[in-house]
Amino acid sequence: MKLQVALDTLSLEECIQLLEQTKGSVEIAEVGTPFIIEEGMVPVKEIHKRFPKVEVLADAKIMDAGEFEADKCFEAGASIVTVLGVSHDETIQGVVRSAKNHNGKVMVDMINVHDLATRTKEIDEMGVDYICVHTAFDVQQSGQDPLEELKIVNKVINHAKSAVAGGVKLETIQDIVNEGAEIIVVGGAICNAKNRAKMAKEMKGYLKS
Amino acid sequence: MKLQVALDTLSLEECIQLLEQTKGSVEIAEVGTPFIIEEGMVPVKEIHKRFPKVEVLADAKIMDAGEFEADKCFEAGASIVTVLGVSHDETIQGVVRSAKNHNGKVMVDMINVHDLATRTKEIDEMGVDYICVHTAFDVQQSGQDPLEELKIVNKVINHAKSAVAGGVKLETIQDIVNEGAEIIVVGGAICNAKNRAKMAKEMKGYLKS
Repeated sequence: MKLQVALDTLSLEECIQLLEQTKGSVEIAEVGTPFIIEEGMVPVKEIHKRFPKVEVLADAKIMDAGEFEADKCFEAGASIVTVLGVSHDETIQGVVRSAKNHNGKVMVDMINVHDLATRTKEIDEMGVDYICVHTAFDVQQSGQDPLEELKIVNKVINHAKSAVAGGVKLETIQDIVNEGAEIIVVGGAICNAKNRAKMAKEMKGYLKS
Repeated sequence: MKLQVALDTLSLEECIQLLEQTKGSVEIAEVGTPFIIEEGMVPVKEIHKRFPKVEVLADAKIMDAGEFEADKCFEAGASIVTVLGVSHDETIQGVVRSAKNHNGKVMVDMINVHDLATRTKEIDEMGVDYICVHTAFDVQQSGQDPLEELKIVNKVINHAKSAVAGGVKLETIQDIVNEGAEIIVVGGAICNAKNRAKMAKEMKGYLKS
């Protein structure tokens, strides 16, 4: 199990500080979508350069031009690139081609996929590495959390590994670990913690090796 | 009717050159998704500064954190921001809030929306400015084009205006103009033309004023 920290709302300087503070607890540094919208591949390049042992995930949430857009992320130093589960099959297949060419990995973000079991089965046959259930930030206030979706995905995947994102916090991580996921994505719970190092270490402590 | 040129594959210098060459023909300069992935808001800021009379569309294809991500685009100088039709209602509503706060506009990209008529009716009630039918780049090779989808959208919208994107070229623009759309998005047909100024002028010539 790996702990991924989603860097969405911090400046690049703050991200670097956070990754210094959480060394040993965080395996994957996610350059979040708003961060990419604002800065492009600059944070991907910079984090990859400064933390060569940390995997960088570019949360590009690709919806079209899969191979072309993924190429840009991998060329900037990303190890993992995200594509949306609601995109065309051809788009996901393009991202998979790009990943193969760059020795990188593909995470499919299942945000707002309606028939989750059926779409997961389809995507599981496409050679992607991770299928990530994801409760959108914009609906987390309504009390939704990703555990039930994780159970659905875990039941039907044969090739890919599962990942989980969307409001994961200290109080919910144990249930997720019990259900099982290769990657657990944590954003605000670490980024907004008073003591980020302690919070990351505590959350990492729940994960199975 | 407005002509929008999608800038996806050119460098910033080439984009500026293109916008110089096509002055008077192009009303909206789209900073395309791959361009944003690579450079963030840099091209939005730069094009807005150099061409104050051209509207800049940031094709962020927002899927979550609608208000937060749209804020970044409008603050950089975008006049129009895109959000995906396949996203949660709450996300589209967040982009609409951001647009109202910044005196900007919202375009919903209907790429890979399955029940187009139903979803268009829902989105049409949310206060968005444009609903854009869009044949994904990744499926254009299969011969799909956006005209049939444009007819479906035009039939059901009452508030928003329609827009159309995806492989539009000189041979197909007349049928689109006949069907009617407020914004016609052209990418490769202008960007890859030998004489970009001539092509843009010729395409603009088809549009109704």
